[in-house]
Amino acid sequence: MTKIAILGAGMMGTAFATPLADRGHDVHLIGTPLDEEIVRGLRATGVHPKMGTPLPAGVTPHAVAELPAAAADADVLVLGVSSAGIPWACEALRPLARVDRPIAMITKGLVVDDDRVVPLPDVVQRALPDVARDQVFPVAVAGPCIAGELARRAPSVVVLTGRHQPTLDRLRALFETDYYVPLTSLDVEGVEVCAALKNAFAMGVALPAGMHEARGGAPGSVAMHNLESAVFAQAVIEMSRVVVAVGGRAETALGLPGAGDLDVTCNGGRTGRFGRFLGLGIGLAEAVRRMEGATLECLEILAVLRRAVPALEASGRLAPGSLPLLSHLMEVALDGAPVALPITRFGATA
Amino acid sequence: MTKIAILGAGMMGTAFATPLADRGHDVHLIGTPLDEEIVRGLRATGVHPKMGTPLPAGVTPHAVAELPAAAADADVLVLGVSSAGIPWACEALRPLARVDRPIAMITKGLVVDDDRVVPLPDVVQRALPDVARDQVFPVAVAGPCIAGELARRAPSVVVLTGRHQPTLDRLRALFETDYYVPLTSLDVEGVEVCAALKNAFAMGVALPAGMHEARGGAPGSVAMHNLESAVFAQAVIEMSRVVVAVGGRAETALGLPGAGDLDVTCNGGRTGRFGRFLGLGIGLAEAVRRMEGATLECLEILAVLRRAVPALEASGRLAPGSLPLLSHLMEVALDGAPVALPITRFGATA
Repeated sequence: MTKIAILGAGMMGTAFATPLADRGHDVHLIGTPLDEEIVRGLRATGVHPKMGTPLPAGVTPHAVAELPAAAADADVLVLGVSSAGIPWACEALRPLARVDRPIAMITKGLVVDDDRVVPLPDVVQRALPDVARDQVFPVAVAGPCIAGELARRAPSVVVLTGRHQPTLDRLRALFETDYYVPLTSLDVEGVEVCAALKNAFAMGVALPAGMHEARGGAPGSVAMHNLESAVFAQAVIEMSRVVVAVGGRAETALGLPGAGDLDVTCNGGRTGRFGRFLGLGIGLAEAVRRMEGATLECLEILAVLRRAVPALEASGRLAPGSLPLLSHLMEVALDGAPVALPITRFGATA
Repeated sequence: MTKIAILGAGMMGTAFATPLADRGHDVHLIGTPLDEEIVRGLRATGVHPKMGTPLPAGVTPHAVAELPAAAADADVLVLGVSSAGIPWACEALRPLARVDRPIAMITKGLVVDDDRVVPLPDVVQRALPDVARDQVFPVAVAGPCIAGELARRAPSVVVLTGRHQPTLDRLRALFETDYYVPLTSLDVEGVEVCAALKNAFAMGVALPAGMHEARGGAPGSVAMHNLESAVFAQAVIEMSRVVVAVGGRAETALGLPGAGDLDVTCNGGRTGRFGRFLGLGIGLAEAVRRMEGATLECLEILAVLRRAVPALEASGRLAPGSLPLLSHLMEVALDGAPVALPITRFGATA
């Protein structure tokens, strides 16, 4: 029996336990210091308090204090923390890293280090102790996957990305069920750029819904869908440009990590609500206030890109002016500029 | 003043008159033999009976009998008929074609001629009289554009495609307003393949909504959106494969004609309703019955592709088995096979 330790008992970490348990693995779901209440709820009721779904048989929840014991003889480690939890997770991983113990991460995000964009799997790899650093190749999971659906066993097709095909193949074989289909890609830069940027662009796709509402329009099949879809297309085009600038493959924007994950992220959710508020024209401060303290990944990634894009342009890897949509989204969501989508600067195709 | 004659007073032909009239052109909207009732309605009330929007000032409606007189001194001809109306439109165009009179077409579709896929602009060009055939390069309009939104002046970004850049530039300059932004592409094959295939794939993206409903699920932010988005991503990937097989550019699938138009077509409408019915598992015959005689472009294009794909494979331009989603959609919608989306055969990226 394969033992899998998941660090982080949030929605995605917990949802990910479902296919693993259904495959018959011995799954240990270990909360972070921020998950104590969730773990207590899971132990008391067997139901995840935020997601409302029962923990499958074969999954054992643990509080953070039990981490060393619960993960000690794990065959695979899974990072299920938020991107803000990565520094904590890297520290927690240190004593657990082994050459023959693969690391998968559900966490998405980009880090800018000394003006260079660094995908999270590389961030995690660098943090590993010397003995493991050259032989463990962290794998990230991307693609369209709403946690609540995975926890309900709705069909999901995702992408495992990493720099070592045998590790990708091994994890794919361990994770796959009839409703959870992981595919693989060696394009770490491309997959991770798409996974991060989709939040910023999903905010952009939601702007026209607010603009329509501000003009007195009701939701319906005739609204501002033409504009939404023009923004969607431009988002995929600009994703592919950033992917190429960072050293990835343009085609990655076209598949599950790009168009697919952007599409699922446009199905309501926090990012969409925030974009709609901005489209209403109520201003940035009021839009943030109405989100009532919810984490806005779109703002985090836009702030990262504000640092990264000038460096990519300065190095010649990105043509200046080639990201008119993204630039406008930065102005709107970081500086509070009024929404005025630059449609005359959009491209027909990539 | 530029005079523009639009053949076809359906929803799209009529919607297209709006930006032209707003640009100050003298617009003549000429019904086909099937549009007599619409033209009577437009004349009596000034409102399009199917769309509910008023005809802008500067647009004169005409019955088909007035076609020769109404179009005689037009500077530009626009085909606004359905794809089924193309043979009629080609006949009607014959006496009107002039070397210095560009032809734009809103009609979308593909024709298979002797096992070769022929884009509609080429079909129209071939039908022109000898004197014009070598010097008139018909231009097609594609990209996300719901007619009812354009008629209400909601912002729309579209693509003009044709084989002659000066004609594209001239029409772009004539058509553009602050809410209607035409971009241009010389990739006629790519744009037209995407414009046609999006209907078939939008049907596929709608299947999971029906599957979810059949399992007793209610619409909501947790449904089968993961699967919808996986189908969406695979659709864009397969579009790019067909585009390349037909001689177009893969990148075209990534922009407005591909991802953009597919996205807008997934916003409800006939195709989505039909796909949902199929996803419910009620069977093809019952799904067709519930559509109450509505034209289903998705069935037309799937029938065309059933002829075209084997020829593309036989010629080596398309790798056999590279269109698992499209093949399944043909089996479901043409043969009545049960829905079983082949997710294990999907690709991570193009």
